[in-house]
Amino acid sequence: MKFHAQVEVTHLPGVLDPQGATVERALPALGYTNVHDVRIGKSIRLTVEAPDAAAAAAQVDEMCRRLLANPVIEAFTVEVVAAEPAAP
Amino acid sequence: MKFHAQVEVTHLPGVLDPQGATVERALPALGYTNVHDVRIGKSIRLTVEAPDAAAAAAQVDEMCRRLLANPVIEAFTVEVVAAEPAAP
Repeated sequence: MKFHAQVEVTHLPGVLDPQGATVERALPALGYTNVHDVRIGKSIRLTVEAPDAAAAAAQVDEMCRRLLANPVIEAFTVEVVAAEPAAP
Repeated sequence: MKFHAQVEVTHLPGVLDPQGATVERALPALGYTNVHDVRIGKSIRLTVEAPDAAAAAAQVDEMCRRLLANPVIEAFTVEVVAAEPAAP
């Protein structure tokens, strides 16, 4: 069965985020003076074949730790939804 | 009032995603042969001061079109939630 996974990879609190800081400095020049705490991370979407949602989530979690995120400086969240309705 | 906004910026369908393609090619070497359709975008989180949620969402949408995303090749979604509960 196919599952769609969405992974959000963010910097851990306290880790510098130069991309977010640059965007935050650029916003006032465009007239947006009421925006703070800009943090920019990665959003990863993929499709995985697995027997059930728990197995899919476990595999994506392992993939994040091994390849998609750097656990030393990044946190990640995984959401899994079935790609098609279950057979009746 | 403060609102937290989460923005997901993704490539439009049909636009090449070299970062996602590279990850997809790397996964089988790690033993993950059941993963497809890897797409990597940006996840942006920020805090905005606005009178209400609709005004916050409208401003973030405008910021996406002007700075955070490139509408020619990227799509974006905006989610806004109140940073603190409303006063009683």
